[in-house]
This record gives sequence, C-alpha cells and structure tokens, in this order.
Amino acid sequence: MPDQLILEKQQQAAEILKEKNIDMWMTFVRETGNIKDPMLEMIVGTGATWHSAFIITKEGDTTAVVGSLEEANMKSVGTFKNIVPYLKSVKDDLIKVLDKYNPNKIALNFSRNSSMADGLTHGVYLELMDLLKDTDYPNRFVSSEEIVAALRGRKSQKEVDFIKDAIKDTLVIFDEVTGFLEVGKSEKDVADFVKSKVKERGFEMAWDEEHCPAVFTGPDTAGAHSGPTDRKIEKGHVINMDFGIKKNGYCSDLQRTWYVLKDGETEAPAEVLKGFNVIKEAIIRSGKAMKPGKLAWEIDDIARSYIVENGYEEYPHGLGHQVGRVAHDGGAMMGPKWERYGNLPYMPLEIGNVFTIEPRLPIKDFGIATMEEIVWVKEDGVEYLSKPQTEIYLVK
Amino acid sequence: MPDQLILEKQQQAAEILKEKNIDMWMTFVRETGNIKDPMLEMIVGTGATWHSAFIITKEGDTTAVVGSLEEANMKSVGTFKNIVPYLKSVKDDLIKVLDKYNPNKIALNFSRNSSMADGLTHGVYLELMDLLKDTDYPNRFVSSEEIVAALRGRKSQKEVDFIKDAIKDTLVIFDEVTGFLEVGKSEKDVADFVKSKVKERGFEMAWDEEHCPAVFTGPDTAGAHSGPTDRKIEKGHVINMDFGIKKNGYCSDLQRTWYVLKDGETEAPAEVLKGFNVIKEAIIRSGKAMKPGKLAWEIDDIARSYIVENGYEEYPHGLGHQVGRVAHDGGAMMGPKWERYGNLPYMPLEIGNVFTIEPRLPIKDFGIATMEEIVWVKEDGVEYLSKPQTEIYLVK
Repeated sequence: MPDQLILEKQQQAAEILKEKNIDMWMTFVRETGNIKDPMLEMIVGTGATWHSAFIITKEGDTTAVVGSLEEANMKSVGTFKNIVPYLKSVKDDLIKVLDKYNPNKIALNFSRNSSMADGLTHGVYLELMDLLKDTDYPNRFVSSEEIVAALRGRKSQKEVDFIKDAIKDTLVIFDEVTGFLEVGKSEKDVADFVKSKVKERGFEMAWDEEHCPAVFTGPDTAGAHSGPTDRKIEKGHVINMDFGIKKNGYCSDLQRTWYVLKDGETEAPAEVLKGFNVIKEAIIRSGKAMKPGKLAWEIDDIARSYIVENGYEEYPHGLGHQVGRVAHDGGAMMGPKWERYGNLPYMPLEIGNVFTIEPRLPIKDFGIATMEEIVWVKEDGVEYLSKPQTEIYLVK
Repeated sequence: MPDQLILEKQQQAAEILKEKNIDMWMTFVRETGNIKDPMLEMIVGTGATWHSAFIITKEGDTTAVVGSLEEANMKSVGTFKNIVPYLKSVKDDLIKVLDKYNPNKIALNFSRNSSMADGLTHGVYLELMDLLKDTDYPNRFVSSEEIVAALRGRKSQKEVDFIKDAIKDTLVIFDEVTGFLEVGKSEKDVADFVKSKVKERGFEMAWDEEHCPAVFTGPDTAGAHSGPTDRKIEKGHVINMDFGIKKNGYCSDLQRTWYVLKDGETEAPAEVLKGFNVIKEAIIRSGKAMKPGKLAWEIDDIARSYIVENGYEEYPHGLGHQVGRVAHDGGAMMGPKWERYGNLPYMPLEIGNVFTIEPRLPIKDFGIATMEEIVWVKEDGVEYLSKPQTEIYLVK
C-alpha cells in the first residue's frame, strides 16, 4: 500500500504544474544516503543509490527512472506508476522518458532562495547537463522553487491535523518543564529532561539535538541557535526554551518564557511583564494582519516596528517561518528584506500556509522574552494551531 | 572541548591541500537542517542555518564565516580557530576573508563522481558565484573531489578502531540472527528482530531502515537494495542478509549467507556449496590483489571474472566501496567501468582505505549467495577488519 499522503501531494503537484504552466517536474538525485533532496520524503517516499529521476507531469503521470537493483524497492514503495530500471547508465532511458512527454518546460530542484527547492547538487547538475548535451532539454529547465513553495506551503487538512497533533504533544512537554524548572538546575539539565520525555514517547526532535531544545536562562545567554550550556537557573532569571518534535513525519516548533521569582516576589517585576506583554502584543498584531495575498515582509514589519517603538532592539532574525515535514518549511518567510533571506520575504501568504510567529526581545538584566506560536492561514485570516501563552509562567 | 577527531582531520586536510597544491578548501552551505553537506560531520561538527563558509587553508588555518546568531554555537563547538559573524549578508565578510589569504586555487564541494564531495547545491553555487561576481575568485574554484577522496579514504588508526568496534558488534547480532532463523518466519520478522537488537544496544542503522537490514530468503527474492518482504523462510532456501550499524559515528556493512536444511539433510547440497565457495574464493582472490596503487576496477575485475568463469552471471553492482562515517564512503570504488560509477573505478587504492568486498551470485532454485567482508589497505596488502565467513551457516 503506497503512502496515501504521497499520492495526494503528487496529485497536488500536478495541479500546481498546470497552474504555473510547467509541463514536468524532475527530481534528479544520486546516493541519497549521503545527501538527500529534501523533496524525496514528500513525493517519493524512498531514496536512491544511483542517478535517478523522479518525474511528475502536469497531467499527473509519474515515472521513476532508477538503477535496476532498485526496481523492486520502487515497486514495493508503490508511489510511482511507471518504473524504468537501467543497468549501466541512466542516459538512454532518461532521454526516452523525456522524449515520450517532450516537455517545453521542466522544473528542476535548484533555487537560490529556498533550500527546500535546492536538492540538486552542483556536481549532479553538471552530470545531468552532460547526459543531455545532445538534446534540447538543457534549454528547457527552470527552477522548481515556485512549485516547491506552493506544494509544501499549501497544506491539506490531513497535513494540518498531523502538525496540530505534534503541537499538542509538545505543549504537554512544555507543561512538564514548568514543573521541572528550579534554581540550581542548568540549561543542559533542562534540555536532558526534555530529551528524555521525547524519547519516552517515541517522538523525534524537530531539528538537530545540539540545539533542540534550546534553553536560555538569565541575562547573559548566547542567543538563538545555540545549544544549552552549564549556566544555572538563578532567582530573577527570565528563561526561554525553543523546542519542537517530529511525529508521524510532521513537526512542531514552539517557544515559551518563564520568570524565576525572587524571595518575597509573587509576580514578575514590571520590566519583565512589560517585555513579555510587548512580545504577546506583537504576536497578536502580526497574527491579525496575516491574510492570503499579504507579502511576508509586511507581517514581519508589524511586529518589528511595534517592538522597536516600545524601546527594545529589533530581533536579529525573521518573525516566522513555515512548518511542516521540517521545522523550516515551505517558501514564503516572514522576515525583513535582508539579503540573507533572498526573495522569501517578498512572497505572498497563501491559503493553507502554516507559519510560526516568534518575535523576541532582551529584557535588560533579566533575560530574553520570546514566544513562538503556530498559525494556519485561511481565507480571511489565521487560525491558531497552538494554544497561545497569555501570561509569563512563574517558577517558585 | 572540541572533538579531537575533527581537529585531526582538519590537520590532515591541510596536509592534503599542500600535497595537491590547492591553497584553500571552502565548504559553503545553507540550511543544513534541510540538506546537509556530507563533509560537515567530519570537519566542522555542527550545522548552519544561513549561508556559511567553513574554510581550511593549506597552512592549517581555519575560519568559519557564519550568521551572527550562530557565533556562540561555533565557539562552543570549538573546531574553528577564527569565527567571523555577519548579520545581513555573508558577502562582505566572506570577501574579506578570501582577500586575507588571496588563494590561487580554492576547492569547493562539487563533484560529478563522488557524492561525498558534492555537498554544494546548485542554487547555493549560483548564489556564491553572484556574491563573488565583482572579484576574481569565481575563476579560482576547483572541485574538492581529490581532497575529499584522500581525507575520507586515508583513515587514521583512531578511525579504523571505531570501524572495527562497529564490526564487532554487528557480527554479534549476525550470530543472534542465526539462532533466530526458522522455517515460517518472514524476511520482515528477521529485519524486525535485527532492528530490536540494534535499538536495545543504542546503535543507529548504517543506512535507511527501509533496507537496513536487507533480508532475502529463497530463489525468488527481489535482489539487493530492496526492503524485506512478507516472504517466508522455507526448507531449501538460501538466505542472505545485508546489514550494518553506526556506532560512535562510524559504520559497519556486512553480509552473511545461510542455508535452511531440508528433511534428512545434514549439509547444504553440492550446488549451494559450490556457489558459496565461489563467493568465498572470489573474496580471497580479490583481497589478495589489493595493494596501494592498484586501480579499483582491476580488483573488481578479478572477482567478476572468477565468478563468470565458474558459470554464474556477473553481479549487477560493484565489488566493494569504502566504509567510514557513512556506509558508502570515500572516493575510489572497486566497480566495473560502467558510466554510472563515473571516475571512481579508475582511482588507485591508497594506504589507509577501508573497503568492503561483496560479490554475489544467484544459485538457481535456492537463492542468492553473498558475503561482505571489510578490509583495511596497508603498505603491502590488506588486513581483514571482519572475521570472514568461511562456511555457509546452516539453519535446521
């Protein structure tokens, strides 16, 4: 029984090809055990050792040209209608398949903007051009980036259900962390606790274990994208954690903020509450502005400006990315117009997109306040897939 | 404490750069959580989100140009001497670092022949060329394939010890499988048993769980690179299994063959023994011929010819690949001169290479005979890292 979700995404890919007026989409790979095109999981469901072409046409026809030793595996995976095995070189069979459809425009997985659409390595690209050098096909290749962005970005109900399910389990673990936090424990202690909870339940981490979860306590932390350290929780620290799981192939990615009460305190001090509330409000405001057709950078700008207007420094990253089979998914990215984000901030939000919203700000002498929620873009606004944090969690 | 093995391999890389007369080696990546250059594990020890350059010079200097949010992580990983953080675009800082060394020849990770040296995606390649378009550097790039082949292929004693250790644990599991095999169990039952043993001990699989282990029983199996099926073990079947683990970052990859006795039999029939012994002898002969300087295809040819001379069809793959941090490692590959293997069969064996030897042949009406041993190339021949199978294992 082939994976139904893969067949569904192949069908969606064919529709997107029609919409974008591209005749064929070819995922061309080699030795995926060493380096794996990020699209394979979604549209193929297995890897390949030798040069292999996984072809979807705008009519919805699917053909896999694979090394003969992998024919049986492709049949048993069952996701491709036509399987063309070859022994010594992919060349002749590949050209035969291309000739059969004679496509005018062929999308290939290379993209300056999106890593998800950039699974074709440069060496394999050169090889492919050489294999086809006696044909006209090298002139017909275009980037698959708009197909990949649409296919990964426009989630089906089934995909959203998987993400919701991963979020639910993640929030349970966040609650357990609240009970675990105490003065004297280190960031690493907290991370180890989280990892043990994830393994206990048989989930995977949503990203590299080095910094999943990322845990930060107090004012002198390293900032996002660092792993947990031996730094210990102290009274008066603001703590935040960035953490997600992968369950049934789909990811969550969430952040929460805590405050460690000092002796005699029953709530967080005013400056901590202010920082927390500015984050909360930045999320609410940007979430409200999210609608299909809005450009991604416009949403980033709302949160970024609000934070700066309130006297904090702007966050050194984007407001939010898409989530799906990977923690950083899809095309459009709600980031500022910085060169490092390429064209992703300039893309419009689309119905079916699932985004994080994750501004941050430093609260001087206390630590970093940040929350990360996950929302689903619908016809006239967003639906929250995560139950938002509304008050800073207190640690006694 | 940085990983000592990484520092050792960086040092070795600098020596190889000198030997090959290349001034600098740059591993240029983006969003390694989505697609990861296979060299990062060996020479960096962490990933990166934004465009990042990991540079090793022939003088042994190391510089990482990374997004500012990842500076702290790079410092804590500790494998690069110089860390240059950037905020909005990698461009200026990258050019500054290149100008500092002004290299004439810069190796980049793209290769038509070797997936291990082909971690640079085509989109990131285009981006890099555009970032450097106002400089002369685009004219100075060469493929890193000979550096990668040498660096991955020439194993240190420490690396070989890790591989030996993984092999030892793998052979223990093979022995447990011998006790588990019995008529009526399916290929999937055997694979599940093996997976449970691997997880029990906290190892990883050496390749995709879909076909690690690969288990084949009887005459009508699918052939290599297929996953286990519901096919059941019967009397008179030849069974073989292809399986490896990853332990401490290094892999094993081994195959063994069993025969299921029929009622009244006390040993395998003559035709089964003949097939098994031809495989055994093909391994001994090719192993004996392996010496530094021999071309990889010459070794393949010895085993291939011997098998064909004995009346069997030639195996539809190469005789052996290198093993290390991944199951298919290094450059040179002992395969036939088929186009799909590129230049890998034409490369010479080098001191320190660790190779599998894994011929196969079909025994009509019984199944597939195959063994896979692992050998280490030394100055005047090979040392077996696996204890070779000398007799077909019998299942009662």
